[in-house]
Amino acid sequence: MSRKFLRPAMMAFASLAIAAGLAQADEGMWLFNALPKKQLKERYGFDATDEWTHHLMRSCVRFPGGSGSFVSPEGLVITNHHVGSEFIDQLSTAEHNYIKDGFSAKTRAEELKCPDLELNNLVSIEDVTARVTGSVKEGMDLAASQKARQATINTIEKEAQDKTKLKCQVVTLYQGAQYHLYSYKRYTDVRLVMAPEMQIAFFGGDPDNFEYPRYCLDFCVFRVYEDDKPVKPEHFLKWGKDLKEEDLVFIAGHPARTNRLNTVAHLEYMRDIAVPEILELLRRLEVALNSWSGRSPENGRRAKDDLFGIQNSRKARTGGLETLQSPEFMDAKMEFEKEFRSKIAANPGLKSTEAAFHEVAEACKAWEAVRHDYNNLERGAAFESKMFHFARSLVRYADEIGKPNADRLKDFSESNLPTIRDGLEAPVPVYPDLEIIKLRSSLTRWFTSVGADDPLLKKVLDGASPVERAAALVNGSRLHEADYRKELLEGGPEKIRASQDPLLKLARIVDEKARQARKTYETQVEERLRQAYSKIAAARLALGGEDVYPDATFSLRLSFGPVASFEENGQKVQPFTHFAGLYKRWELNDRKEPFDLPKRWIEARDKLNLETPFNFVSKLDHIGGNSGSPIVDREGRIVGLLFDSNIYGLALDVGYTDKQCRAVSVDARAIVESLKKVYGAQALVDEMTN
Amino acid sequence: MSRKFLRPAMMAFASLAIAAGLAQADEGMWLFNALPKKQLKERYGFDATDEWTHHLMRSCVRFPGGSGSFVSPEGLVITNHHVGSEFIDQLSTAEHNYIKDGFSAKTRAEELKCPDLELNNLVSIEDVTARVTGSVKEGMDLAASQKARQATINTIEKEAQDKTKLKCQVVTLYQGAQYHLYSYKRYTDVRLVMAPEMQIAFFGGDPDNFEYPRYCLDFCVFRVYEDDKPVKPEHFLKWGKDLKEEDLVFIAGHPARTNRLNTVAHLEYMRDIAVPEILELLRRLEVALNSWSGRSPENGRRAKDDLFGIQNSRKARTGGLETLQSPEFMDAKMEFEKEFRSKIAANPGLKSTEAAFHEVAEACKAWEAVRHDYNNLERGAAFESKMFHFARSLVRYADEIGKPNADRLKDFSESNLPTIRDGLEAPVPVYPDLEIIKLRSSLTRWFTSVGADDPLLKKVLDGASPVERAAALVNGSRLHEADYRKELLEGGPEKIRASQDPLLKLARIVDEKARQARKTYETQVEERLRQAYSKIAAARLALGGEDVYPDATFSLRLSFGPVASFEENGQKVQPFTHFAGLYKRWELNDRKEPFDLPKRWIEARDKLNLETPFNFVSKLDHIGGNSGSPIVDREGRIVGLLFDSNIYGLALDVGYTDKQCRAVSVDARAIVESLKKVYGAQALVDEMTN
Repeated sequence: MSRKFLRPAMMAFASLAIAAGLAQADEGMWLFNALPKKQLKERYGFDATDEWTHHLMRSCVRFPGGSGSFVSPEGLVITNHHVGSEFIDQLSTAEHNYIKDGFSAKTRAEELKCPDLELNNLVSIEDVTARVTGSVKEGMDLAASQKARQATINTIEKEAQDKTKLKCQVVTLYQGAQYHLYSYKRYTDVRLVMAPEMQIAFFGGDPDNFEYPRYCLDFCVFRVYEDDKPVKPEHFLKWGKDLKEEDLVFIAGHPARTNRLNTVAHLEYMRDIAVPEILELLRRLEVALNSWSGRSPENGRRAKDDLFGIQNSRKARTGGLETLQSPEFMDAKMEFEKEFRSKIAANPGLKSTEAAFHEVAEACKAWEAVRHDYNNLERGAAFESKMFHFARSLVRYADEIGKPNADRLKDFSESNLPTIRDGLEAPVPVYPDLEIIKLRSSLTRWFTSVGADDPLLKKVLDGASPVERAAALVNGSRLHEADYRKELLEGGPEKIRASQDPLLKLARIVDEKARQARKTYETQVEERLRQAYSKIAAARLALGGEDVYPDATFSLRLSFGPVASFEENGQKVQPFTHFAGLYKRWELNDRKEPFDLPKRWIEARDKLNLETPFNFVSKLDHIGGNSGSPIVDREGRIVGLLFDSNIYGLALDVGYTDKQCRAVSVDARAIVESLKKVYGAQALVDEMTN
Repeated sequence: MSRKFLRPAMMAFASLAIAAGLAQADEGMWLFNALPKKQLKERYGFDATDEWTHHLMRSCVRFPGGSGSFVSPEGLVITNHHVGSEFIDQLSTAEHNYIKDGFSAKTRAEELKCPDLELNNLVSIEDVTARVTGSVKEGMDLAASQKARQATINTIEKEAQDKTKLKCQVVTLYQGAQYHLYSYKRYTDVRLVMAPEMQIAFFGGDPDNFEYPRYCLDFCVFRVYEDDKPVKPEHFLKWGKDLKEEDLVFIAGHPARTNRLNTVAHLEYMRDIAVPEILELLRRLEVALNSWSGRSPENGRRAKDDLFGIQNSRKARTGGLETLQSPEFMDAKMEFEKEFRSKIAANPGLKSTEAAFHEVAEACKAWEAVRHDYNNLERGAAFESKMFHFARSLVRYADEIGKPNADRLKDFSESNLPTIRDGLEAPVPVYPDLEIIKLRSSLTRWFTSVGADDPLLKKVLDGASPVERAAALVNGSRLHEADYRKELLEGGPEKIRASQDPLLKLARIVDEKARQARKTYETQVEERLRQAYSKIAAARLALGGEDVYPDATFSLRLSFGPVASFEENGQKVQPFTHFAGLYKRWELNDRKEPFDLPKRWIEARDKLNLETPFNFVSKLDHIGGNSGSPIVDREGRIVGLLFDSNIYGLALDVGYTDKQCRAVSVDARAIVESLKKVYGAQALVDEMTN
């Protein structure tokens, strides 16, 4: 419950793969158009045929922040509960709490349409490196090269979109050494079919998160519609057979971001500045929401999804920081960098790469300088709330759509506009009381960050304290109403600019400084890093050959490795858990939250085959964003869903080791056993398994 | 549940009392030897006779971090559950969890002796201002004056102690304008008689903390012994009769610290540096302990007392920061300071006071510069754990006892040594697993604070990561064994210095730098503030007369005010809650934690008079440390126990307002009703009420 879009990184770090710097063991999040076929053949005797690969790729879907796959000819999609929970939550009310009570549609008519869920199904990949890099000319400064490249990317996307009617995105690979155009079929009518209770999906809650052994039934099922009818996908995954220790498995999913190619200076910046700051922010929100949640069951329901995401990121980042603070890890990185740089120095064709390491360090300094304004104003950490983000989108929408596509901010390019519009118009629930709690906490933090005399702070607070101001802003705004947002959007720029809604006014007040910070970040940090890393990555490719895969970028990747135990405190931890263990853990913890079980599960105990596997661990390389990814066997049949890492796997952000790191998955047999015997959903089982 | 030793401060601040800067309405935490008799007479027609005052003073006891009082001729002492909980927790084990299940001794033989609880009963107060201030001569620099004053204080205390055999402490009043010698009878054989379950004592947990209406049975009862027999105190409080809205009441207790006389520069330092930093530290520990607690019921038991204290302080400090960030509050403080300084400027006798405001600002700058080393190394924030604090005490004990009393660190002066020795030898439970969690979190934080290349950090980590090092330090140490600590203490300095215990080695490694930081703090911050504030306070006294009381200093004080409702969101909040409301809140919250009720309470519902008052609010001025203070009526009879503030009362650290601030107390009738009908403790009721 945790591999949803976060950037995790841990102790007991085995230095092998890091020191080598190249893919070893079962390391790698591989591109579908550049699979390590030779490695697979040599190590596992497996032929990754074009047919096998294409079928798997086309069966996968991308969720917001996670992964999933088609599993029936009638458009069923399976993912993790914690990937789907945001959308299940949006369907819930004080009266119908599908997060707490679960949901199961008996008929297609009962399936519930999600107000704001878009799935993307990858159709094709095209290498556009030459065109993108060709747009940057010798002698351009950072601002000019950033502008030229962004314009080219926006144009490529728009052209492809006009031609194919697909959603087209240029993905930056190897930190800028390569660019590929990914074209997706976009699905926006997605309906909830089945979700277990969060209690069993996230059994053990935050205390058990990232731990193993585990007992989480972390899945849920949606159905994709088009023209009000279930889609019939060309490709979907068949249900798998038995799985056992040492079997080779694969995951196809969307790892969001890794930092494995980072230089030491960049890792130090993460260790000393970036990760401590994000942790401070996460803990602050966690404490505020925990305390507020406890005031009533309805508060708890309203904050639950936010709280899950925050606690999950906090635990992952804590593990990440622990890795970065480990001398064993950092020494290995330094050693590798030293060797790598001496190889570069020895290679006349790579001379220009030497300066790139210095450039990365300089970019990190620029990052440190701009980070407060960038994080607080541009990324919105000072105004944490859904309503501010609506306000920001509306204000920017009004300003951006009048510009030529090539000149727009990336999020408002033609290829992204449909998603922006859908997001603004979606009738998702927004709770002003919860909005106030988040906004006051973040305004308080911003106050400390900039000091009482900051002119922009003063303008925003308008003579009030952060606590008073947060209440006034939210209570005075109508942006929690989807109808009002739609009205503004349909009214166009003039109408948006004329609105006196206090949150829109706030978004306008901060926009100038926010845009400045963004521009500084995009040129002095992002562009500088891109230029430097593209040289470093090119040197890696030149020196390391085909064994170098690009860092994760929330694009579709394949990893492989066997189901495997690991050692902890000198003991072997078995790879599979079973239903019997779930009930044991429930009893040992006094049957209390977060180890309580839904009533259905208590009643079904005697009917269940308690020897059914529940969760399992494997050596699959993975990271946040891989949540919900199908685990498939050699025949491409689904045998489980990845949902978590064990605690050692939190190191994977910055380096791979298979000593103790493991991916944690729900076994497909647990899904079938519980659908049949706990939820009485035989029809669903039949559709997925036949 | 919350007025235990913390420094709280809130929105909707009424500027009246602050702007005037002088005691108004029912403001004031008054010295027992300087009560506002005239005010009491004029406003309430009440004669605070010497007899009434002396009886009340001698009936009070000071707990570690809180307050209490004698309530029977056989030595019964009553206080808050949350003041006693640390000691109840020390008596608990995995098998006998008195925090969770409560405790009730049926006979005196069953009363449980606390391993580490010392109570202080104030016997006399003597003004020693002339002797203390006389030791500081013209022309001394900060270090010399600090040394001279500290030596004189140590000497005064030792002389008094030798003469009276009492525990004698010089209390600094008006920030250094006055010094009084407080002499206490010291009780070290204190036994637990009765404690309700924490669930009812702290009903509503952190979410309800500092809120009102409330339903907390926040009391517990100890008995004081001497020579294995119950003491027969000369003075004890009789049990009170009915209490109603508008009745005048008093509290006598030990408010720990207020900052009401602080200058604006000092308040800004608190707002911008000190309070945000302590909050960051508290939230970090809260999140780490919360997550670890959840892993098993036994983890939860072990961490519960720490977690309560942390959450309580975090909520109080959050409110405090909100006050400091309120322009209404700060503008009022600035306005007052401007007027006050213009009066000073106009008064030729106060000319030398003008520079004092600048000196306070300079001291705050010095504080900012030394704060990391002072907090991390000297106050131990980098090594958060009981075992490090034992190690620190042992190392310092070995070094200090060889010095003349006058030259020692204050905590090791002759008057404090018995408490230090008892604390080291007490067989309190220490849980290495919990120690590791706290230590790793604080080492991780220190790493970020000083950076990876800090020489002391490198020495402390010894090549390991903070996570690895915390485990090695705790697992390699024997300081969790009381017998080992006693052995070292009895072996004396040589034995302590020879020990190779890794935590003792750690304490030695950091001691030089810790002492340096302490010295800088004591001279450049504390002494500088003392000298400046003693001038400012003297000017206040000169200009304000008898209406100025000293800031709280954990010495005995009296406050007064009526039982009174308050307004919230335009609604009147009634001053009393009742048993019926408790059951209603339980049901509305699905009977779930933290709103669950102990089994006894569910069963007793029908027997109870549901109209019995449970908690009430009054205008009594109060702060952390006042927890457990008896609330008495005009006849000096106990009618309740103060245990909390409402949310508005978190402003009281820095200024008084009675607009919405209220003290929250358990009604004495709730204690009697539940002792009789829930706990079947009629004998205890008879002893306390007859």
